[in-house]
Amino acid sequence: MRITVLAGGVGAARFLRGLKAAAPDAEITVIGNTGDDITLFGLRVCPDLDTVMYTLGGGINEDQGWGRAGETFAIRDELAGYGAGPDWFTLGDRDFATHIARSQLLAGGHPLSAVTEILCRRWQPGIRLLPMSDDQIETHVLIDDGDGRRYVHFQEWWVRMHAQVPAAAIVPAGAADARPAPGVLDAITGADVVLFPPSNPVVSIGTILAVPGIREAVAARTVVGVSPIIGGAPVRGMADACLTAIGVPTSAAAVGAHYGAGLIDGWLMDNEDKAAAADTALTGIEVRIMPLYMHDLAATADIARAALDLAAGLT
Amino acid sequence: MRITVLAGGVGAARFLRGLKAAAPDAEITVIGNTGDDITLFGLRVCPDLDTVMYTLGGGINEDQGWGRAGETFAIRDELAGYGAGPDWFTLGDRDFATHIARSQLLAGGHPLSAVTEILCRRWQPGIRLLPMSDDQIETHVLIDDGDGRRYVHFQEWWVRMHAQVPAAAIVPAGAADARPAPGVLDAITGADVVLFPPSNPVVSIGTILAVPGIREAVAARTVVGVSPIIGGAPVRGMADACLTAIGVPTSAAAVGAHYGAGLIDGWLMDNEDKAAAADTALTGIEVRIMPLYMHDLAATADIARAALDLAAGLT
Repeated sequence: MRITVLAGGVGAARFLRGLKAAAPDAEITVIGNTGDDITLFGLRVCPDLDTVMYTLGGGINEDQGWGRAGETFAIRDELAGYGAGPDWFTLGDRDFATHIARSQLLAGGHPLSAVTEILCRRWQPGIRLLPMSDDQIETHVLIDDGDGRRYVHFQEWWVRMHAQVPAAAIVPAGAADARPAPGVLDAITGADVVLFPPSNPVVSIGTILAVPGIREAVAARTVVGVSPIIGGAPVRGMADACLTAIGVPTSAAAVGAHYGAGLIDGWLMDNEDKAAAADTALTGIEVRIMPLYMHDLAATADIARAALDLAAGLT
Repeated sequence: MRITVLAGGVGAARFLRGLKAAAPDAEITVIGNTGDDITLFGLRVCPDLDTVMYTLGGGINEDQGWGRAGETFAIRDELAGYGAGPDWFTLGDRDFATHIARSQLLAGGHPLSAVTEILCRRWQPGIRLLPMSDDQIETHVLIDDGDGRRYVHFQEWWVRMHAQVPAAAIVPAGAADARPAPGVLDAITGADVVLFPPSNPVVSIGTILAVPGIREAVAARTVVGVSPIIGGAPVRGMADACLTAIGVPTSAAAVGAHYGAGLIDGWLMDNEDKAAAADTALTGIEVRIMPLYMHDLAATADIARAALDLAAGLT
């Protein structure tokens, strides 16, 4: 069985653990969001790719869900001593090594997809991890915080401003001219099922879908999504601020409707959102209601299994 | 009083500590060797500049004489995990931060002299530290180790091969077309005295002198050197292997004669080398004999004071 997953960071990485447990023999390809990527201290940082790689490779900081376990922060402190770079984005020493290795490979002419493959040789995540594109795409957010109406990098809005400044728009800068990375369209076209894990519908899944060709390829497959919204709030992160920016209410039904019957075929919502299951905007989408909190691996595997079962009934 | 010092790494840095103690009111400019510089893991490493900066700024690992005190090695281990880069050049985490900050500034268009000034703002070394050139000059060593006769970077010969493969030639690649960094010629021309600390005569002092214009400017001043050779052997490092490559015997007198009366005016040799003080090759050079081991700050200040006294008697 071939499964292709469009993935953001923490939520996707945890879901993928459950998916691997639920479908140990499946051939899983993960198309990772690179819109969060940022150049810091001259080094290329790919937060979502790394979160997936570290989580599935056993190197993740389990408590926070991102970054490395057993991390130290000598470099952060030293760079602050030099007054270098932004002080609002903390990278640990172990994590820095990944960005150094990646930047060196990129400077050597390897595209991001090849670099990601090289880094994954060490981590052996048990899935094939592809960046959505080898072209540089960065999610930019239009804000007006008194310093004037301007676009800032997603990370500046998300990490520095904690998404507390309203976003007037969220755009995937560079997406219009980008191409999917090698293997991406084949992984979608050849998939028995495409899954949307409980990732941010705007800046994770939405950004991947903004790469020309990906949305169309996905729409042609059987697609099942897992709601990242439970009981009217994001389980993690600040997806509500992103949804507001694109005019979508923060509800599981609204997110399912935002994807729409033209894109997804099945939609998992939590028990808390049962009342909305009959929402007319979800017409044409098979909805399943079940516990969606990924408390542990067993609960997460149940969710993944339910997504696969729903897909199997739809094909 | 204005003193200008041509400096390599560890020996020069220690000498400079003594010089600062001996002449606390002097305006000291240090022209640092950049021929040892190397790009590792995509980052620009300037070992001699950093050794001077860390030593005078209080950040040096006192035991080894280079690198940072209290160093950790998470990045080295991580990079090895990725199979990235050379495994024969170890950089600590704190040191890595310097190279990250430097590389970011260089990539931003700052010349090395400006970058060095920025890094020194943190360390406050109490001297003005100038790279010999903003142009990229790298010391390359011609070897034949069975893999064929070829040039390798100085660091590969020095660190990886421990200078145990004979050097057929040592060349400052890029020097012929290089220019002294801003301020270098003025610091020499305006100096009351130019000092050669006990640095490697070939790959430290020799490389600085290879930058067009520097040798002539130095020769026009009162110059006093301190022998890095005591009792027929380098006090530290493998200067003998470098001297052999250029056909100079490993003796204090031979090094003084190699600089020659056309370049230096005074030459400090250790008590152990007293017998050679009357060497005819030293004709025209004022020789002083005294203890030259830099055991501690007091002994080192005595050496610096002797060098200044000798210079005062010559002008």
